[in-house]
Amino acid sequence: MRNIKLVLAYDGTEFAGWQIQPDAPTIQGTLAEAIEKLTREKVLPQGSGRTDAGVHALAQVASFSTECSIPTENFLKALNGNLPPSIRVLDVSEVPASFHVRKSAMGKTYRYRMFRGAVCPPFLTRYVWHYPYPLNEAAMTQAAQNVIGEHDFTSFAAVDPERGRDDEVSNMRTISSSEWNREDNEFVYSVRGNGFLHHMVRNLVGTFLLVGKGTIAPEEINRILEAHNRSVAGATAPASGLYLVSVDY
Amino acid sequence: MRNIKLVLAYDGTEFAGWQIQPDAPTIQGTLAEAIEKLTREKVLPQGSGRTDAGVHALAQVASFSTECSIPTENFLKALNGNLPPSIRVLDVSEVPASFHVRKSAMGKTYRYRMFRGAVCPPFLTRYVWHYPYPLNEAAMTQAAQNVIGEHDFTSFAAVDPERGRDDEVSNMRTISSSEWNREDNEFVYSVRGNGFLHHMVRNLVGTFLLVGKGTIAPEEINRILEAHNRSVAGATAPASGLYLVSVDY
Repeated sequence: MRNIKLVLAYDGTEFAGWQIQPDAPTIQGTLAEAIEKLTREKVLPQGSGRTDAGVHALAQVASFSTECSIPTENFLKALNGNLPPSIRVLDVSEVPASFHVRKSAMGKTYRYRMFRGAVCPPFLTRYVWHYPYPLNEAAMTQAAQNVIGEHDFTSFAAVDPERGRDDEVSNMRTISSSEWNREDNEFVYSVRGNGFLHHMVRNLVGTFLLVGKGTIAPEEINRILEAHNRSVAGATAPASGLYLVSVDY
Repeated sequence: MRNIKLVLAYDGTEFAGWQIQPDAPTIQGTLAEAIEKLTREKVLPQGSGRTDAGVHALAQVASFSTECSIPTENFLKALNGNLPPSIRVLDVSEVPASFHVRKSAMGKTYRYRMFRGAVCPPFLTRYVWHYPYPLNEAAMTQAAQNVIGEHDFTSFAAVDPERGRDDEVSNMRTISSSEWNREDNEFVYSVRGNGFLHHMVRNLVGTFLLVGKGTIAPEEINRILEAHNRSVAGATAPASGLYLVSVDY
């Protein structure tokens, strides 16, 4: 049995997220079909983590097992030939059976693109959050630093009905970098950590927005972290601006 | 009666082109609806020229007449509020009645983006022509220079059944600049002229491609121009790579 690792980029706009669903186009489902066409095997490729509907990836990592003898170097062209142009395989490699795409991940980097110009170019609407209103960007930059380090991120995690209340599952995560940067007309949030809870990056962005609007001070991020309560943080920012940039192993 | 001039950007991917059609989404039709919502007047905005299905615009120019008293500075926000994000009004101004959006145009600039990398990023597929195969780009650069000047471009014009054979309509056009440039993974054709025939830029690109593939020499562009015969030139390049960049008045 071979273990195949894929690096994928996708435009999430027209997908109902990573996770396979019976009646909606998903990244996982579309990828499974492309693999089956090639190998004649029914496999469910596993991802480093889920991405939600509308969220993009520059380098998501997935893996699947196969009995087929197709040379690794032929997978890239063949899979891209079976996939829609909105999903592209960027790299294929064979990895040891011990490689687990989710459990072996040491860290992830996400980026959130906010477009600040008055009129959003039509070529960017699928790929940013258009927010043309006044914001104190310096305060947001300051606020972003307050999440660096090891914290319980319950206040920034979606209340997940599937998961229920499971005291054994920790919401402790370590963030190694967290910053906002101006890139021409865009204000871009980049965050790197050892793991992220559901909606965590979008909830952080929505909370930094409260700082930008002057509703809360940058230091109040600490109070929100300590509250361990989703309802004290800001709203979830739209999916269109979010990118899974990379996964480290 | 006021004459209102609009500068528009649009992502042409999901439109059946500029010109209004009864059962397909068009730029002109969508714009007419947005204007009607605002002014309560049924008007058909005129464009500097048509763009075909899938062709994009960075700064198309359109105009319409209105009896309404809405201040010019309010049109931009109001129209953008009524338009889908794939069409954006970039500028609005009131112009003299003598301004004719098509006849007053002195020149136009188009750009054609060809993506040369092996794998096209999913975020670019709507906005380029993905052509990863070998091309002699230096020969294409040389070929592009041969269309500069005043020429009869019949060989590069779509044979238009609507138009028929009208000897009074000239296919003479003057091209003031025509060049290919490498921009990272893209090979980009830029052309400026006093006017363009239907499909002319895409037919030029398709013919330069023959030069790039070594099918014809760069000098043979002159022979193709002199033939005044569409069938001697190359195929029409896909719409997705083409942009109307600007219109000069």
